[in-house]
Amino acid sequence: MRQQTIIAVDWGTTNRRAYRIENGAVIRTEQDALGVTAVSPGGFPAEIERLRARHGGAPMLLAGMVGSNRGWMDAGYVPTAATLEALAGAVVRPIDDVMIVPGVRHIEARRGDVMRGEEVQLLGAVAAGLAPDDALLCQPGTHCKWAQMRGGAIASFITAMTGEMFALLKGHALIGQEMTGPVTPGDAFVEGVRESTRGDLLASLFGVRPASLLGLRDREDAAAFISGLLIGADCAAHAGKGDVHLLADPALGALYACAIAELGGSSVLVDSHAAFVAGANRLWEYLS
Amino acid sequence: MRQQTIIAVDWGTTNRRAYRIENGAVIRTEQDALGVTAVSPGGFPAEIERLRARHGGAPMLLAGMVGSNRGWMDAGYVPTAATLEALAGAVVRPIDDVMIVPGVRHIEARRGDVMRGEEVQLLGAVAAGLAPDDALLCQPGTHCKWAQMRGGAIASFITAMTGEMFALLKGHALIGQEMTGPVTPGDAFVEGVRESTRGDLLASLFGVRPASLLGLRDREDAAAFISGLLIGADCAAHAGKGDVHLLADPALGALYACAIAELGGSSVLVDSHAAFVAGANRLWEYLS
Repeated sequence: MRQQTIIAVDWGTTNRRAYRIENGAVIRTEQDALGVTAVSPGGFPAEIERLRARHGGAPMLLAGMVGSNRGWMDAGYVPTAATLEALAGAVVRPIDDVMIVPGVRHIEARRGDVMRGEEVQLLGAVAAGLAPDDALLCQPGTHCKWAQMRGGAIASFITAMTGEMFALLKGHALIGQEMTGPVTPGDAFVEGVRESTRGDLLASLFGVRPASLLGLRDREDAAAFISGLLIGADCAAHAGKGDVHLLADPALGALYACAIAELGGSSVLVDSHAAFVAGANRLWEYLS
Repeated sequence: MRQQTIIAVDWGTTNRRAYRIENGAVIRTEQDALGVTAVSPGGFPAEIERLRARHGGAPMLLAGMVGSNRGWMDAGYVPTAATLEALAGAVVRPIDDVMIVPGVRHIEARRGDVMRGEEVQLLGAVAAGLAPDDALLCQPGTHCKWAQMRGGAIASFITAMTGEMFALLKGHALIGQEMTGPVTPGDAFVEGVRESTRGDLLASLFGVRPASLLGLRDREDAAAFISGLLIGADCAAHAGKGDVHLLADPALGALYACAIAELGGSSVLVDSHAAFVAGANRLWEYLS
């Protein structure tokens, strides 16, 4: 492999993380809140120059919402089964030495789904050997993605509004006023996971309020119970019985690992930054 | 049955409906937005006098949130199995000739639920022969209640946040911006009911957005589809295969009837005002 330096950016809606990578190794990394919604339309070329200057110059590889119609430019989607080679073949070049990675779309009967940014992590995890070629990968978060890999490609995926639902309930629902306690993978969380197996989410959620009113559960436990309900419902629908490879930060990863174990499955925590960097490196090999 | 006149009030959080009943027949009825949250603490005696004067005087029977700690006075709960006789035996009399009906609580293992106001409708529906003694009754709405009657008593019940969830999603979720179309029991609603049987609500809800983005479903259909998803999930969890007796207004009743039919069940629409009046009459017989 010849000498190469790139600046890879995982540029989401509300955050971005930039990595200067020299010969495959991360030399410098930086995270900030300059997501695409914080950049004015037309402001991307100037913002890119600032970013590039700060990281010592080099070709730039951008992934995530920066490639959407809310970002710099719509980079489109490649269809499933999606590989790094297919992504490399469809990059968009808004200016010299800057490449935007397209997203991935999956259509199955009348259901469809899209991703933008996650695909570099998913394919990078497999390319780097952090997960097997046929792994079920999970990226928890506001919109939790479950991707089934086949032969190293993204064969299919589905998104659940798990994190968004928790925030919605906490911020705006009647039961939100009960959600003041901490969320940890303890007894209340596990009770929520067990309750989720009843398959009656709308009633299980409402039940938090009378349980508190009737003294059946400490109010302090409500947030953890609800997190268990939602993550339990998400995992029950998608985790299956084999290993789930979790691309998550340690706190959220611990909640998903606990729910998956409670449901009789098993999980492996994968470093999502390492996966992104591996994906960016492999993409660059196809591009250079 | 001797001559009797009462003023019965179904007094909820945001609305109330008053009925002047003479010898079992409704002579006059009135609905307004003076729910309990619109009456100041301490303002109930004066408000009651205005209401009584407007309806020509008579003993008053109050049901609903007026009997909670957010209303005039906490009237407590009677346990399941709950009968009209038990409710009559536990009424609270804040002033002469005014009686507040208690609510009902149900506890089963570590799950519990409460109702306040619905119990008069439920027991009245059965007492008036509008539903059989062992009916499964459903009261759709912001918080949808499903009550299993046994021998004419409320044996058990559970509440689902079906209507509240629809409002939450429309008002605050990312998919809310898609929810601009009408909600009718048509094709998009039925498609949502079918999708709900997958038991994957958090992903089915999120899927509305990529379906619109990828041109798989008209944006105009999204609200009806989501209503079908939520009502479908509610009915799949609670309706069973026998007749469901729906205490609902015609529009919401039609949606529930459609979902129940799509899931292979059957339903009967019951007049909820007639049920309330029947319950109030029977309660008064026990009280006078």
